[in-house]
Amino acid sequence: MPKFMDVHHNMTGITAEQLREAHQADLAIEGDESVHFERAWADPDSGIVYCLSEAPSADAVQRIHERTGHKADEVHPVPLSV
Amino acid sequence: MPKFMDVHHNMTGITAEQLREAHQADLAIEGDESVHFERAWADPDSGIVYCLSEAPSADAVQRIHERTGHKADEVHPVPLSV
Repeated sequence: MPKFMDVHHNMTGITAEQLREAHQADLAIEGDESVHFERAWADPDSGIVYCLSEAPSADAVQRIHERTGHKADEVHPVPLSV
Repeated sequence: MPKFMDVHHNMTGITAEQLREAHQADLAIEGDESVHFERAWADPDSGIVYCLSEAPSADAVQRIHERTGHKADEVHPVPLSV
């Protein structure tokens, strides 16, 4: 399954609890689009959040994020990894 | 140890072998700065590469990347993760 890295900006001040809740909300419905969100990382100071997922397409990733209220600003396929 | 996500642009056309070689070059000297590069992901089409590391500082991450010939365009602390 292809991997994707999506990026959210403007999340300045995000807390550990908010990141966990957002991730849990994605996990709760990700199966509807055959997506799996593996990890997420956040910088409260710059407001950037990165999410790593496996999914059939970038659109599938975005549809889950939109339904849970946090549309990504960028979704990049990352076919290569080490 | 703090975690960092660094981003490289303009890596269009990067191959799996080139990503592996770049990562290995970082691993070979990362101990000089007490950095550890955990993972890296690349999109040859858009030319974006993301590297996840643990390090004492963003400057330490950048010093390793500079010595191995691939300075990062951005280095973000990511104190929160799930």
